[in-house]
Amino acid sequence: MPEARRELRVDLGERSYPIVIGQGLLGKEDLASFAPGDRVLIVTNASVAPLYLERAQASFPGKQVDSVILPDGERYKNWETLNLIFDALLEKKHTRKTTLVALGGGVVGDMAGFAAATYQRGVNFIQIPTTLLSQVDSSVGGKTGINHPLGKNMIGAFHQPQAVLIDTDTLSTLPSSEMSAGLAEVIKYGLIRDIEFLKWLETNIDRLNDRDSRVLSEAIFRSCACKADVVAVDEREGGLRAILNLGHTFGHAIETHTGYGSWLHGEAVSTGMLMAADLSRRSGSLADADVERVQVLLERARLPLVPPAGMTPQHFMTLMAVDKKNVDGSLRLVLLESLGKAVVTSSFRNEDLHDTLAHFCH
Amino acid sequence: MPEARRELRVDLGERSYPIVIGQGLLGKEDLASFAPGDRVLIVTNASVAPLYLERAQASFPGKQVDSVILPDGERYKNWETLNLIFDALLEKKHTRKTTLVALGGGVVGDMAGFAAATYQRGVNFIQIPTTLLSQVDSSVGGKTGINHPLGKNMIGAFHQPQAVLIDTDTLSTLPSSEMSAGLAEVIKYGLIRDIEFLKWLETNIDRLNDRDSRVLSEAIFRSCACKADVVAVDEREGGLRAILNLGHTFGHAIETHTGYGSWLHGEAVSTGMLMAADLSRRSGSLADADVERVQVLLERARLPLVPPAGMTPQHFMTLMAVDKKNVDGSLRLVLLESLGKAVVTSSFRNEDLHDTLAHFCH
Repeated sequence: MPEARRELRVDLGERSYPIVIGQGLLGKEDLASFAPGDRVLIVTNASVAPLYLERAQASFPGKQVDSVILPDGERYKNWETLNLIFDALLEKKHTRKTTLVALGGGVVGDMAGFAAATYQRGVNFIQIPTTLLSQVDSSVGGKTGINHPLGKNMIGAFHQPQAVLIDTDTLSTLPSSEMSAGLAEVIKYGLIRDIEFLKWLETNIDRLNDRDSRVLSEAIFRSCACKADVVAVDEREGGLRAILNLGHTFGHAIETHTGYGSWLHGEAVSTGMLMAADLSRRSGSLADADVERVQVLLERARLPLVPPAGMTPQHFMTLMAVDKKNVDGSLRLVLLESLGKAVVTSSFRNEDLHDTLAHFCH
Repeated sequence: MPEARRELRVDLGERSYPIVIGQGLLGKEDLASFAPGDRVLIVTNASVAPLYLERAQASFPGKQVDSVILPDGERYKNWETLNLIFDALLEKKHTRKTTLVALGGGVVGDMAGFAAATYQRGVNFIQIPTTLLSQVDSSVGGKTGINHPLGKNMIGAFHQPQAVLIDTDTLSTLPSSEMSAGLAEVIKYGLIRDIEFLKWLETNIDRLNDRDSRVLSEAIFRSCACKADVVAVDEREGGLRAILNLGHTFGHAIETHTGYGSWLHGEAVSTGMLMAADLSRRSGSLADADVERVQVLLERARLPLVPPAGMTPQHFMTLMAVDKKNVDGSLRLVLLESLGKAVVTSSFRNEDLHDTLAHFCH
């Protein structure tokens, strides 16, 4: 007996779209109505294709469904791999009425989404995220893009999907490090905007680690609802949306320093969130006990709490200088005013930032 | 005494922007107010930089103005060259508050525009077109992109500029083949939408060939006004806007067949428009005398009237199959219902198309 199918709506006027969440939906949920043309290209990777490609194809009855299988890994989130998608579209003569479908984690979603944003200046797009991280974060909100050797996600576009389908069954095959990485973003929603959700997570973290399907489904629903709310207010990150980047400025620096892919995004964000909490404490917003709560929850989710050995404060400062949130040369960070309330700000003391970096870099 | 400075507005709601047209404007017109951040990156090419870069820099008083100089030519309208812009932006640590400025012809405009559309998911953009073709066509309307080996302009985005500055003085240095190529697009506006303008062109074509500044300025103004009208009705080419592609489906096939850059875009469009007129005649919309008028005007503008030697009907059919206007496998073309009235249609006889191709291919 499958769990209840739940549906959320991301409210963006004429670009609004549903997020459908449930167990066993892939292959059963009919997605053909979200693909207006008669052709679909499923973009997936070598790890996901053997597990779910066939079921994904069955979700588009009556369509001609092509597929392209990318190599798996953040290090392939670049122009060369993106071009495999364009090659497939052009060799198979897909027109601008085609629909691209991302089947996989965040890397597949970001690349398929960017291909959809830019193929013939924009085609339809559907997200079928198969990792916890992509289900609660990257598949919702329309951010797409690729990396550049000098910075992560530096080339991209906002391009909203026609629909997002989240089948919690796909998490059964997920490596445990990727489960933890996804939980980092789940915890983030509690930290930035929802103290009740944070408490719920403190109560349920062990069941989440054990992949209790009912509890996972609830965590995904609440995370997506939080993200959908924020995106509806600020689609193109003019203001509020930037709070979704709690821990990401520090985290991106870690990912860039180590080379994309050696740290999982969620792992880097975990360390980054703890660093942001530490800086918030030095800035006078959080109590020692608050930071301790953040640390304990991340630890129970089996997430890293310090940057890689050898990474110095100077490394952080150099890499953070190109962050997209910066305004005219001034570094901006997401900090916590309290647990459950984040703010984007440049008004922290440089001295406190250096103390945080020195404290975390060994 | 400079000519009157004239201003048009492209009406796109919150994305509306001015087109300023006049003689001697570059370096005098203050564009700083269209660049909200404190930094600007001018994208230009090796031919244009020595002539106009210094004056363009002077158009942004009070800003830090960087520049990047691309190789000149349609064959460089690819990812590798685009990446030179991203490299410059990242090496110089430009944030999402930066403004990209295109100084050059259509290739520079399309690439700088696509970089602006995708750098950090979108930054501000200003067009300073320096060729007749880009002044009357590509700088207005927000189409940006690059070529793919399997098709022209297959990767791109819609990204409207904050402003377009057209200084007719820049045409004084333009090679005469490029003047003619620009006139092909000017003539197009008469053919698709404005029989009075077509008559005006028949009267004034020799003065345009002689680069009479007053007459050129009038031709540019009327061309931009026509394009601005069409784009305001249909920004993202859902319908009407496609009429701007009169001759372009045939023309793109010529450009792809010969390799980008060996035929100028306007030259290919000239031949393509005459082919479209011929097919319109075979379909019963145009009289023989109408096609003759089109041919004479293109000839007086010193434009080519037949495809390159060796190009066969089969070449055309294969290359036209990937055109962006096609819908679910059916070839669509822009044809003329009468001189001054274009329509996008699939309802022509295949036999007539083959006859047109056979007639033009030697």
